[in-house]
Amino acid sequence: MTEPLRLGIAGLGTVGVGIVRIIQKHAALLEQRAGRPVVITGVSARTKTKNRDVDLSDYAWEDDPVTLAQRPDIDVFVEVMGGSEGPAKDATEAAIAAGKDVVSANKALLAIHGQALAESAEAAGRVIRFEAAVAGGIPVVKALTEGLAGNDITRIMGVMNGSCNYILTRMEDAGLSYDAVFEEANQLGYLEADPELDVGGIDAGHKLALLSSIAFGTQVDFDAVELEGIGAVSIDDIRHAADMGFKIKLLGVAQLTGRGLEQRMSPCLVPDSSPLGQLQGGTNMVVLEGDAASQIVLRGPGAGEGPTASAIMGDVMDIARGLRISTFGQPATGLRKARAARAAVPAPYYLRMKLLDKPGALAKIAHALGEAGISIDRMRQYEHGDASAPVLIVTHKTTRTALDEALAAFPATGVVDSTPVAIRIEAV
Amino acid sequence: MTEPLRLGIAGLGTVGVGIVRIIQKHAALLEQRAGRPVVITGVSARTKTKNRDVDLSDYAWEDDPVTLAQRPDIDVFVEVMGGSEGPAKDATEAAIAAGKDVVSANKALLAIHGQALAESAEAAGRVIRFEAAVAGGIPVVKALTEGLAGNDITRIMGVMNGSCNYILTRMEDAGLSYDAVFEEANQLGYLEADPELDVGGIDAGHKLALLSSIAFGTQVDFDAVELEGIGAVSIDDIRHAADMGFKIKLLGVAQLTGRGLEQRMSPCLVPDSSPLGQLQGGTNMVVLEGDAASQIVLRGPGAGEGPTASAIMGDVMDIARGLRISTFGQPATGLRKARAARAAVPAPYYLRMKLLDKPGALAKIAHALGEAGISIDRMRQYEHGDASAPVLIVTHKTTRTALDEALAAFPATGVVDSTPVAIRIEAV
Repeated sequence: MTEPLRLGIAGLGTVGVGIVRIIQKHAALLEQRAGRPVVITGVSARTKTKNRDVDLSDYAWEDDPVTLAQRPDIDVFVEVMGGSEGPAKDATEAAIAAGKDVVSANKALLAIHGQALAESAEAAGRVIRFEAAVAGGIPVVKALTEGLAGNDITRIMGVMNGSCNYILTRMEDAGLSYDAVFEEANQLGYLEADPELDVGGIDAGHKLALLSSIAFGTQVDFDAVELEGIGAVSIDDIRHAADMGFKIKLLGVAQLTGRGLEQRMSPCLVPDSSPLGQLQGGTNMVVLEGDAASQIVLRGPGAGEGPTASAIMGDVMDIARGLRISTFGQPATGLRKARAARAAVPAPYYLRMKLLDKPGALAKIAHALGEAGISIDRMRQYEHGDASAPVLIVTHKTTRTALDEALAAFPATGVVDSTPVAIRIEAV
Repeated sequence: MTEPLRLGIAGLGTVGVGIVRIIQKHAALLEQRAGRPVVITGVSARTKTKNRDVDLSDYAWEDDPVTLAQRPDIDVFVEVMGGSEGPAKDATEAAIAAGKDVVSANKALLAIHGQALAESAEAAGRVIRFEAAVAGGIPVVKALTEGLAGNDITRIMGVMNGSCNYILTRMEDAGLSYDAVFEEANQLGYLEADPELDVGGIDAGHKLALLSSIAFGTQVDFDAVELEGIGAVSIDDIRHAADMGFKIKLLGVAQLTGRGLEQRMSPCLVPDSSPLGQLQGGTNMVVLEGDAASQIVLRGPGAGEGPTASAIMGDVMDIARGLRISTFGQPATGLRKARAARAAVPAPYYLRMKLLDKPGALAKIAHALGEAGISIDRMRQYEHGDASAPVLIVTHKTTRTALDEALAAFPATGVVDSTPVAIRIEAV
C-alpha cells in the first residue's frame, strides 16, 4: 500500500490547526514512517474567513462536516469539533456510513454514543480511533488496548483533567480558596465554556468511561460513573491532608469487583510521595494495573495544540500503516453490559470535623465509628481558639456504606460542631 | 483472519514460563481481543526434564531452537533465550529465513545485529518486534514507534536498568558503599551472571541504542553509545548531590545534534523533585520528548516474569491483530547511518574535589575553570577535620571538552588534594 492516506479534518480550532501544521511540517517523516504519504484533502469549520495562521489553500473547503465526511476523496474522517450531539455526531455517523475510518478527539461523543458508533463502524468494516480523547498527548489508549493486551486489567486510575489538577495544586501552592483559583483559571482561559465540564468531573468522567470499556471488555457507560467534582474541596482539607502526608486529586478509578464495575471520578487523597501525589499543574497521569505487567504509569500533557494533535496523528499513522483494531479493543458486539457497583471496594477515609471542646467528645466519635465497624488508624486534634476543636481522623479500610452509617450517627453524639468532610484515600 | 496464531517459544526460563502461563490462563480473553486464538505449538529449551511448574505436554518439544524456528506449524518465533550470538542469533535468522515473524526480548542481539536482522526480515516480508527488550513491562517501543509517530523526536532519556537503580537508591537509603550494596544485590540474585552487563551500563546501553534507532531513524549503533557504569559512584557523591537537591541515576540520553547523534549511558545528576529523581528501586522510567507531544514519561517494572511476558504478549497480540510494522518504525533500508557525536550538548556539571586549606585555593580553581570558559553556578565548602576541605561546585552549562581542559589544569594549581569527580547534570 503506497497510495496516499487522505484525511478530511472537521474542526479548525487549536487542535485542527495543530494537525495541519504537523502534516505540512513533517510530510517526509510521516511518509518514511508510514510507507505512504499522509495528506489532507479537505477541511471543514464554522467560519471560512477566520485567520488561522496556516495555509489551507490546497485543501477543499466544506461548510458542512457531513459533506466533508462523505467526500469520495477522503479515507479518514478526523473529528476535532467536539460536542456529544449535533454536527459532530451527524458527521461521524455519515463518515462511517460512507465507508470512512474515523479518528476522533471527542470524548463526550464516544463516552455517550461509543457503543452504537463502534457497532456501526464494525458492521461497515471501518475503525474508530480516539487516542486524543483521553489524556491528551499520552498514548494511553494504545498502551491499554495494545501494549497490555496480554493482561487481565485489574484497575485503572487517572488524573485526567488538567484544569482541575491545576486548580488543586495552585490552591495548595498559593494558599488560596477554591473560588479564588477557579476565578483565576477562568480568566486565564483554562476552563471550558461550561466550567462544570471540568470542575464537575464530567470531562474526566468521559475519559474514564472510555478507558473502562477497553480495560474490562464492557460497553462504555458514562452514566454509571460516580461523579463528584472538586467544588467542595477546601484549602483547609488540602492543608490538613498535606500535614498527614497526602495530596488531594480529582482521581478516576475503575475496577471490576464481585458486585460489578466500579467507576468513580471524585476527589481522593493519595500519598504525597506517590507518582499521582507528585503530579503538579495541568499535567495528566494514568495508572494501568494488570495481572502480568503489574503497574504502568504514564504521564504527560493532558491538552493543548501539540499534544492533542500528536495523539490524533498517532491514530492516523496507525491507519496509514494498516492497523485495524476494534474501537474498544475487541468486537463491539461482544462487549458486556456491566452492572454498576457503587463504592464496592473498601478504602480508608480521611474525616475532618469540628468537635465541641467537651470531655469525652472524641470518645463519642470513636464509639460512633466503632458501632459502624470502623476502626481508627490515625487521629489529630489541632490547637484552637474557640469552643470547638478541628479533628482529623484517618480510618482503617471501610465501605462507604459503613461510613455513611457512622456519619449519620454523628449528630446524635451532640459533640460535632460542623458537617464532617469525608474523602476517600485511594491506595496507589 | 480467524485462524489461530501459532507460537514457538524458544527459552523456558522465567520469561518463557511467564508467556506460557498467560496463554494458558487467558486463552479466552486473548481470543476475544485478537479475534482469533493465540496458541503455543512448540517450545524449546536446554533441558527438557527441568521442573518448570507449568504443563508443557500439549506442545511439541525441540532441543534445538533452530529446528523450532523452522517448524511449518508455527507462525511466530518467540525468542526469550538471550545472548547476542550463538543459538539465539542462529534461531532468529532461521525463523526469518523460514518466513516466520519474530518477537524477541533479546536486547543484546538486536542492539548488535538489529540492522542486518531488520533488513532480512523486511526482505522476507516478516516483522521483528521487541517491546520486551526495552524497559520490561513498559510499552515504550510502542509509544515511541506508534503513539508518537507524528512527532519529530527531540530527546529520549531513561533509567532502564533496574539493578543499577536499586543499587544507587539502596546506597542512599542505607548509607552503604557501592561495594557493599553490589555484594548484597549479587547475593539477592538481582544481577546478571556477568554483573558488568548491569553495572557497566551495557544492558541499559543496548536498550538506549534500540530506542535511538526508532526515535531518530538511524541504524542501531550500540558501539557509538558512550558507556560509563556506576562503579565509580561513591556514597559521598550521592550524599553531596542530595544536599544540593539532586539524585544520581544511571541515565541514558540520546539526541540528534548538529554534530551527529549523541548517545550516552552514564551516571548523571537529576533534580530530586523530577520524575526521574523520584524513581526508587528496580523500577524503570523512560522519557520521550517530541516537538508536538512535548514530554511523555512512562514508568513501570523493568524486569521480571510477569512484566516481560506482558511485553512479549503485547507484540504477539499486535501480530495476531494484523499489525505489520517495520522493526525500527520505518523500512530498515532507509535508516541513516548516524555520525556519533560525543558529549556535544552542553550541560552543567557537578564537581567534587578536596582542596588544600591554603589561602586563595578556591580562587585558583575558579580561575582554572574561568580560563576554560566555565562559570560557577553554586559552590559549597564543607567543614573538615584535616588539612584539605571538601568542595562542591555546580558549574553553569559547559561542554565536556571545556571541562576536561579545566580538569587538566587543576594539578598545576597546587591546591587540589584528590582526583576531582565530575558528573553531568541532565536537564530533565
